[in-house]
Amino acid sequence: MFRSVITGTGSFIPPDIQSNKDFFEHVFYTDKQTPLAAPSPEVVEKFRQITGISNRRYAADNLNASDLATLAATRAIEDSSIDPETIDQVIVAHNFGDVIKGTIQTDALPALASRVKHGLGIVNPQCVAYDILFGCPGWIQGLIQADAFGKAGLAKKCLVIGAETLSRVIDFYDRDSMIFADGAGACVLEYKEVPENGSGMLSASVQSHTVKEVRYIDFGKSNFPESDERIRYMKMKGRKVYEYAMKYVPLAMKDSLDKSGMPITALKKIFIHQANEKMDDAIVREFYKLYEIDTPPADIMPMSIHWLGNSSVATVPTLYDLVLKKQLQGHELRAGDLILFASVGAGMNINAICYRY
Amino acid sequence: MFRSVITGTGSFIPPDIQSNKDFFEHVFYTDKQTPLAAPSPEVVEKFRQITGISNRRYAADNLNASDLATLAATRAIEDSSIDPETIDQVIVAHNFGDVIKGTIQTDALPALASRVKHGLGIVNPQCVAYDILFGCPGWIQGLIQADAFGKAGLAKKCLVIGAETLSRVIDFYDRDSMIFADGAGACVLEYKEVPENGSGMLSASVQSHTVKEVRYIDFGKSNFPESDERIRYMKMKGRKVYEYAMKYVPLAMKDSLDKSGMPITALKKIFIHQANEKMDDAIVREFYKLYEIDTPPADIMPMSIHWLGNSSVATVPTLYDLVLKKQLQGHELRAGDLILFASVGAGMNINAICYRY
Repeated sequence: MFRSVITGTGSFIPPDIQSNKDFFEHVFYTDKQTPLAAPSPEVVEKFRQITGISNRRYAADNLNASDLATLAATRAIEDSSIDPETIDQVIVAHNFGDVIKGTIQTDALPALASRVKHGLGIVNPQCVAYDILFGCPGWIQGLIQADAFGKAGLAKKCLVIGAETLSRVIDFYDRDSMIFADGAGACVLEYKEVPENGSGMLSASVQSHTVKEVRYIDFGKSNFPESDERIRYMKMKGRKVYEYAMKYVPLAMKDSLDKSGMPITALKKIFIHQANEKMDDAIVREFYKLYEIDTPPADIMPMSIHWLGNSSVATVPTLYDLVLKKQLQGHELRAGDLILFASVGAGMNINAICYRY
Repeated sequence: MFRSVITGTGSFIPPDIQSNKDFFEHVFYTDKQTPLAAPSPEVVEKFRQITGISNRRYAADNLNASDLATLAATRAIEDSSIDPETIDQVIVAHNFGDVIKGTIQTDALPALASRVKHGLGIVNPQCVAYDILFGCPGWIQGLIQADAFGKAGLAKKCLVIGAETLSRVIDFYDRDSMIFADGAGACVLEYKEVPENGSGMLSASVQSHTVKEVRYIDFGKSNFPESDERIRYMKMKGRKVYEYAMKYVPLAMKDSLDKSGMPITALKKIFIHQANEKMDDAIVREFYKLYEIDTPPADIMPMSIHWLGNSSVATVPTLYDLVLKKQLQGHELRAGDLILFASVGAGMNINAICYRY
């Protein structure tokens, strides 16, 4: 039978570390533009306790999202050993395009996928390059896209990349600015013949909630009272997002797993969007409760948020790459292991994929 | 057999007309930031002779691209008579997202498709909403996307929209600013059972050229010498784009037509991206020459560029909607008519679809 198989992964983790201490001098305001009462070091420590984030990475000034994407993609192609000229589609997921350091304009003309294809030196005009925007779940959605083209008989090898430089669209007067980070992750997805119990995508689940949820994550004005109202930043209604994610992500994960026909006991790892440590923990507990299991297995969920922060579309492919390259202690995969990818983000959108390694 | 069939179309043409005369007071500079020697009315008249553009439409100040998209989509849904809650995917093609009048930031968080789904009041969470960025050919690419999901058995009804407010990202010191316009076009594409000779998408062709072509259309600095270098505008290397389009678009059109198995003599209409009248004429002549036909049939190519300008992703669906609604004198379609859609734009990307009405 034919399935979409990840045959190579790569990521680019910017070397520049921004620590929580680097936020000690920041002045934080609420979304009502009133200053926070607590001193900033206290605000930062409380933030760490909730989110689990101690450090995050920012891209070097001269690199844009498409550059990070190209670096991650280069590694994924090397890892897969495919000839890049045989790639049918380059799909880049992002939310803000390229944002030149020190400017406020986002730029996706041409699409980032064109820039990446250019950067990779791929000449073949049959290699179609396009971007998809689907909030943080964009990279997983890219896999679902590529899988659809595979099933339709229209593409066999797709390069799927998530890249973002959130450090350039955040409001440093907002506590949430501490969450976000820069990075890129990529994989080569090949639609190929595999044995019945072989590797590949087994099932997927996707949902878009856009009624009251549409503005839970959006572009809005600064928390700083004297800011230019015309300049907008990435904004998140944290509590709403948390409640939303808790309600729907476990259900999407269950839907995907159940569609695969595999039992929960076969599940070896969950690669979940690195949004917030406590939230991710709670989602996984809730997911297991749906199967009447009180305690999720130890080590079911590799995490990178402590040292990488939330790099949106880049978190899941980066995490997966880290585990496969044995760079995340205590986590590894063996042939045949059943895993889940899951994400949630602006839209609001949710998706999950059940995959056999 | 199953095919993707357009079962409804709609467009939104902003009522505000910007005439060539409105540019008489503009001061134009070259891309080398030197003033044009000729007086502006002369520049404008020469521009009209080459491009065919006399008027273009600008969106009202309070409407953004996602609003235009919602208006066009509402009409397409009405036209198709489907229940909007049965739509499987909302796909919005654009390049700049929402740009609030008087600001320089583009905004696609959440994705425009989320905003459109919200605007349409669609509640069904299984209706997946996402954007694709593929330059001006984005709307045609959206059809190809939707068709792939149809063939893969993953979606039956897709709403495909192209929307743009280019008036908000152009450099008014650049002659090219006269080309661009605002607008939105949409269709409902249903993957359904049809007779062998029934309606629907017969074939498609797509190409991405990103070697020397990647920056033929991009975001760059103003032609005005005293402009803020950090503020960028939509920029086009006109001659390069012209030569590129002339070389590759006729070949993609031929590839698509030949894949359909239909003869050139069966072709009734060509709906081509409204980029430049002379260029579109030349492309169609070149296309017919590939079949050793010296003169294309009269009325093969409906045009709207004279009064609507170039609204990027919106031109082809708007043109198609105008013909179907009998709002373009001398052009109509009858059941069974063979047509081509074709586009070219930033990436650089080219695509063509052969479709039986």
